[in-house]
Amino acid sequence: MSERIWKVYLSGEIHSDWRERISDGVAAAGLPVELSAPITAHEDSDDCAVAIFGPEQDKIWHDRKGASLNSIRTGTLIAGADIVVVRFGEKYKQWNAAFDAGYAVALGKPIITLHPAGHDHALKEVDAAANAVARAPEQVVHALAYVIRGNLPTIGAEAAAE
Amino acid sequence: MSERIWKVYLSGEIHSDWRERISDGVAAAGLPVELSAPITAHEDSDDCAVAIFGPEQDKIWHDRKGASLNSIRTGTLIAGADIVVVRFGEKYKQWNAAFDAGYAVALGKPIITLHPAGHDHALKEVDAAANAVARAPEQVVHALAYVIRGNLPTIGAEAAAE
Amino acid sequence: MSERIWKVYLSGEIHSDWRERISDGVAAAGLPVELSAPITAHEDSDDCAVAIFGPEQDKIWHDRKGASLNSIRTGTLIAGADIVVVRFGEKYKQWNAAFDAGYAVALGKPIITLHPAGHDHALKEVDAAANAVARAPEQVVHALAYVIRGNLPTIGAEAAAE
Amino acid sequence: MSERIWKVYLSGEIHSDWRERISDGVAAAGLPVELSAPITAHEDSDDCAVAIFGPEQDKIWHDRKGASLNSIRTGTLIAGADIVVVRFGEKYKQWNAAFDAGYAVALGKPIITLHPAGHDHALKEVDAAANAVARAPEQVVHALAYVIRGNLPTIGAEAAAE
Amino acid sequence: MSERIWKVYLSGEIHSDWRERISDGVAAAGLPVELSAPITAHEDSDDCAVAIFGPEQDKIWHDRKGASLNSIRTGTLIAGADIVVVRFGEKYKQWNAAFDAGYAVALGKPIITLHPAGHDHALKEVDAAANAVARAPEQVVHALAYVIRGNLPTIGAEAAAE
Amino acid sequence: MSERIWKVYLSGEIHSDWRERISDGVAAAGLPVELSAPITAHEDSDDCAVAIFGPEQDKIWHDRKGASLNSIRTGTLIAGADIVVVRFGEKYKQWNAAFDAGYAVALGKPIITLHPAGHDHALKEVDAAANAVARAPEQVVHALAYVIRGNLPTIGAEAAAE
Amino acid sequence: MSERIWKVYLSGEIHSDWRERISDGVAAAGLPVELSAPITAHEDSDDCAVAIFGPEQDKIWHDRKGASLNSIRTGTLIAGADIVVVRFGEKYKQWNAAFDAGYAVALGKPIITLHPAGHDHALKEVDAAANAVARAPEQVVHALAYVIRGNLPTIGAEAAAE
Amino acid sequence: MSERIWKVYLSGEIHSDWRERISDGVAAAGLPVELSAPITAHEDSDDCAVAIFGPEQDKIWHDRKGASLNSIRTGTLIAGADIVVVRFGEKYKQWNAAFDAGYAVALGKPIITLHPAGHDHALKEVDAAANAVARAPEQVVHALAYVIRGNLPTIGAEAAAE
Repeated sequence: MSERIWKVYLSGEIHSDWRERISDGVAAAGLPVELSAPITAHEDSDDCAVAIFGPEQDKIWHDRKGASLNSIRTGTLIAGADIVVVRFGEKYKQWNAAFDAGYAVALGKPIITLHPAGHDHALKEVDAAANAVARAPEQVVHALAYVIRGNLPTIGAEAAAE
Repeated sequence: MSERIWKVYLSGEIHSDWRERISDGVAAAGLPVELSAPITAHEDSDDCAVAIFGPEQDKIWHDRKGASLNSIRTGTLIAGADIVVVRFGEKYKQWNAAFDAGYAVALGKPIITLHPAGHDHALKEVDAAANAVARAPEQVVHALAYVIRGNLPTIGAEAAAE
Repeated sequence: MSERIWKVYLSGEIHSDWRERISDGVAAAGLPVELSAPITAHEDSDDCAVAIFGPEQDKIWHDRKGASLNSIRTGTLIAGADIVVVRFGEKYKQWNAAFDAGYAVALGKPIITLHPAGHDHALKEVDAAANAVARAPEQVVHALAYVIRGNLPTIGAEAAAE
Repeated sequence: MSERIWKVYLSGEIHSDWRERISDGVAAAGLPVELSAPITAHEDSDDCAVAIFGPEQDKIWHDRKGASLNSIRTGTLIAGADIVVVRFGEKYKQWNAAFDAGYAVALGKPIITLHPAGHDHALKEVDAAANAVARAPEQVVHALAYVIRGNLPTIGAEAAAE
Repeated sequence: MSERIWKVYLSGEIHSDWRERISDGVAAAGLPVELSAPITAHEDSDDCAVAIFGPEQDKIWHDRKGASLNSIRTGTLIAGADIVVVRFGEKYKQWNAAFDAGYAVALGKPIITLHPAGHDHALKEVDAAANAVARAPEQVVHALAYVIRGNLPTIGAEAAAE
Repeated sequence: MSERIWKVYLSGEIHSDWRERISDGVAAAGLPVELSAPITAHEDSDDCAVAIFGPEQDKIWHDRKGASLNSIRTGTLIAGADIVVVRFGEKYKQWNAAFDAGYAVALGKPIITLHPAGHDHALKEVDAAANAVARAPEQVVHALAYVIRGNLPTIGAEAAAE
Repeated sequence: MSERIWKVYLSGEIHSDWRERISDGVAAAGLPVELSAPITAHEDSDDCAVAIFGPEQDKIWHDRKGASLNSIRTGTLIAGADIVVVRFGEKYKQWNAAFDAGYAVALGKPIITLHPAGHDHALKEVDAAANAVARAPEQVVHALAYVIRGNLPTIGAEAAAE
Repeated sequence: MSERIWKVYLSGEIHSDWRERISDGVAAAGLPVELSAPITAHEDSDDCAVAIFGPEQDKIWHDRKGASLNSIRTGTLIAGADIVVVRFGEKYKQWNAAFDAGYAVALGKPIITLHPAGHDHALKEVDAAANAVARAPEQVVHALAYVIRGNLPTIGAEAAAE
């Protein structure tokens, strides 16, 4: 049976290497996956709109213009994704990640959340809308390998992933 | 011209009296508004599912069952709302509020966020998807009065609202 | 805050009194709920179309005409429901119940399943798409009371419901 | 006139070789068809989530996690399919097959059911929502050959298919 | 269980009394049905737009303006209907009836066709998309009585309806 | 046959009395119509957001905040309307009227445009998407009377309307 | 600017060579068009289902099974089309063509009708929902050439097309 | 991470070289963008339908036929676009541009407006629905470069763009 390309959007935290670990894992497993993501260069993401369209006096409009421009990318990629992975890191409010999760769910997209156990209670509404809750990027890769090809990790893999 | 009933869902923070202030303001102004909200009794909201369907050994499933049951209410009321107000308080992660915001936006609902200025940068993606950003519950009431009837507050009202 | 009427469709088994128990419970609690259901008179449900439009030689078309006529009712009521409760009894294939569950989920309706524990493994895909899994009709009533009004059963209620 | 690729999802029974017979028939006829299916390795399908994300104490959550993970695959493939074939075998409850049928129909997908005549009455609601009811996998291949290319089987084919 | 109002749109032939017979039957049975229909005054329906907006030199634009104005009514009422009944009489092309049928089906509305047996072959595609095929207006009333309340006609009714 | 309430949104020009003339005509004819409109007090419409949420230094953000707040009203009322009437007056750009027209058409709403003949060429794309083009508010009233009740104006009415 | 492939479905009459004339014209003009159509072998189209799934005693079910099978093809191709051309020939009821037109319009597809002037009045509702009305297949080719590439026929072409 | 092709529709003004400047900029930057646009040959756009289907006596129907034919192209391309850029030039009513903007927004497409500062107040409703407001075609190119690849212009670029 033929193989389709699965489009996976990686939403959320931009301060750790979780996207690279998923990307590496997908490549190592040879999975037919197209990963996409928001612009993860933090400063560029904040300043993009004033850099292109000109400066603002007020920080609030500086931010608004930037967020509106970024949402062209995020909205389009989420709408085109088969699966949305949403990462919540240890720190920061990360409200845009939760917003993306709600947005994806309302569009009927399956989501996989990725966060430490310490966030379990605070994320219970988001996790209840998710198809899976992962602790490590490697578990996301394993989930993709299973969903796409039916391949399961060898015994002990899930312990090592932590 | 005849008057329609506007359905307004109040999402987010459950630790301050902002819903009451909006409810009082709406009543005082005689606005044709039906307010709705999640279950705001915090413990009940956490324990509802185990109280009804029986206990769980693991806290994670205790939470999951509760969040799934609560989402029957929140999902239905958001889907039926004309406007969704999303409140972010000073404290806590409040990821469910951001999730509701994303969910509402993807359904094409107009949203009004309500939060202190200190959250502006962290909420810039959510605010960029909102139709208005309020600082005080009274401003939400004023916004409803204008949207529904075209009534604007008398001069100085916005200063006093803070 | 004003009270909305919740429309609840009761799908599935027609050989026990579970719909009456939910109806009685809803009435006893004074919940603002409109219950609806398929035609539950078994023979009428089988023979409706031939009784109205004339007989068929083949049983397969006798059944087809009847099922098509019944689906006008079931499809319309599910599409108009806020919540769909799906009951699987001890016996029979009950594929129409599972079909209704899938239909409701694809329309974005929250569902509550109601079945004995013995069906848990066989129903795991349906339950995974549900917002709650109940064992007794009274638990469905409790769930509605909580979802609509935030009322929880007094201690011990969930044990007695079994 | 140019030839499109038809995406056909094969839902249901995993205990007989019906998928292989359709796959072989499609290949033999050279039809432009991409077949897809759920993960059909029964044990893997049951245990996938605990293998990836860690064990559960309760069987019910072991099952829930697995079914939720599997639904990423099944939901995505059904949503992307042009045609959904739903197979009901002689044995088992097979509620997930009926659930998939309802889900597909609500999404506007044409479905073809495949089951023995003994199930006709129990499946009358599902069959009434189907575009065709087949008894043998070869009939599904014939239906695809006709729908896609207008090719009909030579005389006697339908008898031999049984 | 409470009773909903069913909205039924009556599309098609305007030269016989079939709408009156359905209306009378619905009234006699006391069914909770709101019937709607296109403007059935033939000349007014043809000339409405030129009567309101001024004359046209070309008959083709005279007709186009009228049909566009009429479609405000028909499109709105079909979109708001629970059930669409489509009547094909003995004579005329009646392409607007078939157009309405296709339009209603694509919107997910259940349809009941009403036509003499002589049209069966010519209407096979439309009938295959319908939930029921009636020969007499009284059968439509019987179908509504069953769908809405589960009432079946007494024995012999379907014979007399012819 | 019972009478439904038709919801009609009146978009566009705010400098002439066309809404009053439609409102008067609808009242005089006793039509079951609920009219709605944007806030038509020009200054309030421009300044609403700064009056409620506080002033802006830049005129562009003063305008942006106001337009975003106004769109809560206009978007909600258009989405809830059965018919959208779009008026283009003699003067001004009136891009928001054309925007509303496009918005309504994409939502599947029938639209009636109302403008002088001098705009015909410039509005040809909008008129081509409309169900009717009126020159005078009274023609809109006549169109509503016909669409809703099948009543046509007496002879000469269309001439007098100019 | 890059060139997209336009998918055009050719619905309706199967007794003349209009599809070949469009196909030839598209090929001669080198247009990036993928044409699709129903199965146009009349007898096969009538008998397909009984040939594959076995005979029926009643002609009505013989027809029903066939029409249901054919609708897998027609429904899928219309849903995937950019443009639907609907041909009404001189003879026959051709209700399936009008049904397809209504179906396509409700899905938001632009349609082009193709029929002799003698049908203008009978098809006025269908034509009012169409983007263009053609008299000859060559005009459809010209319309495609213009819509896709902006190429217009040389002077006199429309006269010769008749 | 792999690169997707972004489809960008360029709506609006046809009297300046803004489309060429965007096209050149996209080519120079090597962006994976497919640009599309309405037919921009003004006379052809006006006369297309009469050239293909025959002349009209009334200018209003000459225009109507043309606009309807053009909307096959514009509606299809907007529906298929990821991003819609809407240009308002210095002159003319340009109501079709505003119509396209409203149409795109209702379909959930992100839009970028492109217009001189002098239009800011008149376009405030359109701009409030846009994700970005550009003054120069080069800013649109920069926005695309950022949205697609995260590339920002070097310092001073936004000043030079004016």
